[in-house]
Amino acid sequence: MIYDISSDNIRNEVSETCKNFGLSRIQKSAFMGILPPGRRKELAARLRKVLGESEGNIQIFVICDADLALREVIGREYVEGGEEVVIV
Amino acid sequence: MIYDISSDNIRNEVSETCKNFGLSRIQKSAFMGILPPGRRKELAARLRKVLGESEGNIQIFVICDADLALREVIGREYVEGGEEVVIV
Repeated sequence: MIYDISSDNIRNEVSETCKNFGLSRIQKSAFMGILPPGRRKELAARLRKVLGESEGNIQIFVICDADLALREVIGREYVEGGEEVVIV
Repeated sequence: MIYDISSDNIRNEVSETCKNFGLSRIQKSAFMGILPPGRRKELAARLRKVLGESEGNIQIFVICDADLALREVIGREYVEGGEEVVIV
């Protein structure tokens, strides 16, 4: 799930929603996690409501295990409020 | 491909690299496009070089057609230097 949102309030509400759904932050504007399809649809509906008519863009992607195995992480990985982990 | 990079220069170099590989910007810090595996690996190597030892994080995800069909876009989609397209 990636987002581009200029309002601080809405951006915070979006991150809180993601956390409530059990997702983890992987970048400043990106969350990831495991969700069954029903929960994913609930999340989309919730985010659509949070964004409303405000400026912004949210995109939710489904990534299967085979694709996830090909994920490439370059540089330091985001760690919420803590030190950073180097994976170069 | 999503990124979190604080240096303007490196961020610009990363976007230029993505454009050179034929990817399109889908958010301020996200590009997407179709690449054969060899080119994807070249892109990763190139981005690794661009980021070097600088602060930042770049992640490349592979998304198959079946997963892509489940993509959910909420709000206004990013259009490079132009007006925005509403897909709510």
